[in-house]
Amino acid sequence: MARIAPVNAKGTRDFLPRDLVRRNRVFSLLRETFEHHGYEPIETPSVENTNVLEGKYGEEGDRLLFRILKRGESLEKAARMLLAEADGDHSAAALSRLFSDEALRYDLTVPFARVIAAHQNDIVFPFRRYQMQPVWRADRPQRGRYREFYQCDVDCVGSRSMTVDAEMVAIYCEVFTRLGYTNFVTRVNHRGLLNSLMAVSAVPEDKRVATMTAMDKLDKIGLDGVREELVKLALGDASVDQLIEMIGLSGTPQAMLAALRPMVADSTEGVEALDELAEVFEYAAAMGVPTERVSFDMSLVRGLSYYTGPIFETVLTDMQFGSLGGGGRYDRLIGQFTGRDLPCVGISFGLERIFDTLSEQDANEEPATTTQALVTLFSRETFAHAFALARDLRAAGICTEVYTEPKKLSTQLTFAKNKGIPLAVILGPEEIAAGAVVLRDMRTSTQRAVPSADAAAQAQALLR
Amino acid sequence: MARIAPVNAKGTRDFLPRDLVRRNRVFSLLRETFEHHGYEPIETPSVENTNVLEGKYGEEGDRLLFRILKRGESLEKAARMLLAEADGDHSAAALSRLFSDEALRYDLTVPFARVIAAHQNDIVFPFRRYQMQPVWRADRPQRGRYREFYQCDVDCVGSRSMTVDAEMVAIYCEVFTRLGYTNFVTRVNHRGLLNSLMAVSAVPEDKRVATMTAMDKLDKIGLDGVREELVKLALGDASVDQLIEMIGLSGTPQAMLAALRPMVADSTEGVEALDELAEVFEYAAAMGVPTERVSFDMSLVRGLSYYTGPIFETVLTDMQFGSLGGGGRYDRLIGQFTGRDLPCVGISFGLERIFDTLSEQDANEEPATTTQALVTLFSRETFAHAFALARDLRAAGICTEVYTEPKKLSTQLTFAKNKGIPLAVILGPEEIAAGAVVLRDMRTSTQRAVPSADAAAQAQALLR
Repeated sequence: MARIAPVNAKGTRDFLPRDLVRRNRVFSLLRETFEHHGYEPIETPSVENTNVLEGKYGEEGDRLLFRILKRGESLEKAARMLLAEADGDHSAAALSRLFSDEALRYDLTVPFARVIAAHQNDIVFPFRRYQMQPVWRADRPQRGRYREFYQCDVDCVGSRSMTVDAEMVAIYCEVFTRLGYTNFVTRVNHRGLLNSLMAVSAVPEDKRVATMTAMDKLDKIGLDGVREELVKLALGDASVDQLIEMIGLSGTPQAMLAALRPMVADSTEGVEALDELAEVFEYAAAMGVPTERVSFDMSLVRGLSYYTGPIFETVLTDMQFGSLGGGGRYDRLIGQFTGRDLPCVGISFGLERIFDTLSEQDANEEPATTTQALVTLFSRETFAHAFALARDLRAAGICTEVYTEPKKLSTQLTFAKNKGIPLAVILGPEEIAAGAVVLRDMRTSTQRAVPSADAAAQAQALLR
Repeated sequence: MARIAPVNAKGTRDFLPRDLVRRNRVFSLLRETFEHHGYEPIETPSVENTNVLEGKYGEEGDRLLFRILKRGESLEKAARMLLAEADGDHSAAALSRLFSDEALRYDLTVPFARVIAAHQNDIVFPFRRYQMQPVWRADRPQRGRYREFYQCDVDCVGSRSMTVDAEMVAIYCEVFTRLGYTNFVTRVNHRGLLNSLMAVSAVPEDKRVATMTAMDKLDKIGLDGVREELVKLALGDASVDQLIEMIGLSGTPQAMLAALRPMVADSTEGVEALDELAEVFEYAAAMGVPTERVSFDMSLVRGLSYYTGPIFETVLTDMQFGSLGGGGRYDRLIGQFTGRDLPCVGISFGLERIFDTLSEQDANEEPATTTQALVTLFSRETFAHAFALARDLRAAGICTEVYTEPKKLSTQLTFAKNKGIPLAVILGPEEIAAGAVVLRDMRTSTQRAVPSADAAAQAQALLR
């Protein structure tokens, strides 16, 4: 049989144990934090009917869907239809519709909205849920961008209360603190406030997207840069001055809210937004979020499409590139499936970004394997002792591998070294006769004999 | 915008929290058991190049692959090729190759073999790994059979030692015992012994598959039934008698092995198989597997294709239908990718079968949600107290949800009841003034006031 090239599909990755030690630690920590806050897991199928996905992500999104080819009779029928209309529309978009009616999940939000609609009678609202699953996008692969990658979403459906919006800030704070980040902040703004700023500054409807896009660059180009861009948009001087005054505000969230209040006094939407933001900052503080972990940032815009209330983005303060996650309140998306609006607020965690920044941060401190101890094998007569010892170690919660066969001790110790197993437990006829085992710390190459009965406890102490 | 029907793709399932409480408990237990035995996680992409998958699962398997439709220019080119050969082969198989060169994973074994080949220089052998990921098969959906479902594989590559084969029996025993099964046994046989039985009973090459298929039915049709089938195959009387004598053997594995020894004395393969089986039973016992959890079963055949040594199957002793898992030694499969054979032994867990049998077993005992406590909200003035209390409970490891807004207490308690949250923690102005909270056990509808400072400890005790 010809040898098959062992190549993985373009833009995908194999994860070996060394990678998964970190990834699974992060997944567990996220899962635990979410469940501690009363968020429950849901999972949706990888494959969705195409009509659920199409039109939700723009033309670009439709083009990047991984579509499932029809099978059997349906596939043959599609080919016959193509052949019968040899002069028809043979664009990739038309062919996709002809040859496929299912596709892989593109994000977690649309499937979640479908689930809410499908199961709304089984679900008790308000419903807090989290979801961590892979999604697929046929993007051109590049450094840090893959065709199959995990998303992680946390949402609460069915409440307009700002306690939930504040909770999103608290969850960001807890997750990133527990992951060991010391340099992050969650930026907060409000979609209604942005609308109101546009209105009170007399920005015409057709220039609002461009205006907000310019404001969003504050981080990168500074206040003067934003002013230049606004001037280029041919907004009147008064409009530009007022916008710059507002987005130039600084200070505590409370001080900024107070300064904004007179400016938006004539806009109901603006006043409501300020009231909601005041609640978010008050509740987040009451939930234990330190003041340095949250900021009010009027230049935050985030995807202009479906957000309707507070919006969030968590960034590393000492890095320029991108965010660790973002989200906001979107009270109207689920209505596309249910026919009635359900208020909703949610955030995402940029998992691949998190894995990448963590790997720079602590690559050397992370263990290379889940396995903590290797029990060596001497001769067949000693196997039963070795197996019993391994059981003791496992009962003490130590992940323990028994070497597969009685090879030279040096071979077995090299195996432990190469795998990064921190502890070798050596057990030969002499040790057995003496009722002892030898614990060898592979990190320091030091070893000592201990009584068999103490082996598990001593091993625990060594591994701590 | 027209409402979109919230229908999931055919043969797939949405998992709500109630389902995932059980599923995630099983996943965690499996993961923990495997890691305790020194098995490390790996993960492979969902999408594989088709040439990696095709031809590994027979024609049926190739037909059931979920293939990814080509995109953009490649898709348009495929259509042009079809149109240019209007009289060509337009079977589904040919069309599949024309319109697709990637497909979803069909099992975990082939991707694992690919990973071993691709990363053989990064991997330290012997390599113990486990993998739990979904696979996709376009089977006709029916009760208990889905198009997307999880597989769970545990394998060790790079050792011919029977300690590893025995470890597979030990892992089955530990997993099913910890899951609460009291009625399972792992049946063990050996592919080499089966070959040898065929040889010493003078079964012609061309009747061996049919003979083993007949033997495999012992469970269902009994020894007389098997004899009838063997007679129908027109094996000579002597052959039939000898086969029936051998597969009719009973007793302890050791007694059966002893009885077989003279019968296969002339077959090197048979003698080696008996030696290996003797090791498997000896080591499994030394690893702590009780005698009633393992049996030597000469009627076990299991997939005739790639096994080369001991084979395993774990079944429920009080149920007829199917197995909870199976596996065996396959020393030559990985060679298809690496060009050199690597010895291998592995088992699978039938996860969907496990979820189904567990759900019959303990559906009523399993919690309906991961959330353990609901903290009620009274008025905005009490929010800070409620949030602080929730933090205390979470710090004590209790999964705690704060109700989203100050509604009537009865509404909030009904919410807890409907979700299956076992504990409500009630905190109004009176309790706050008294430095107390009310713990309400939702399962018994009883409640009592406790000092705020004791709330977490008392809640822990109630939930235990």
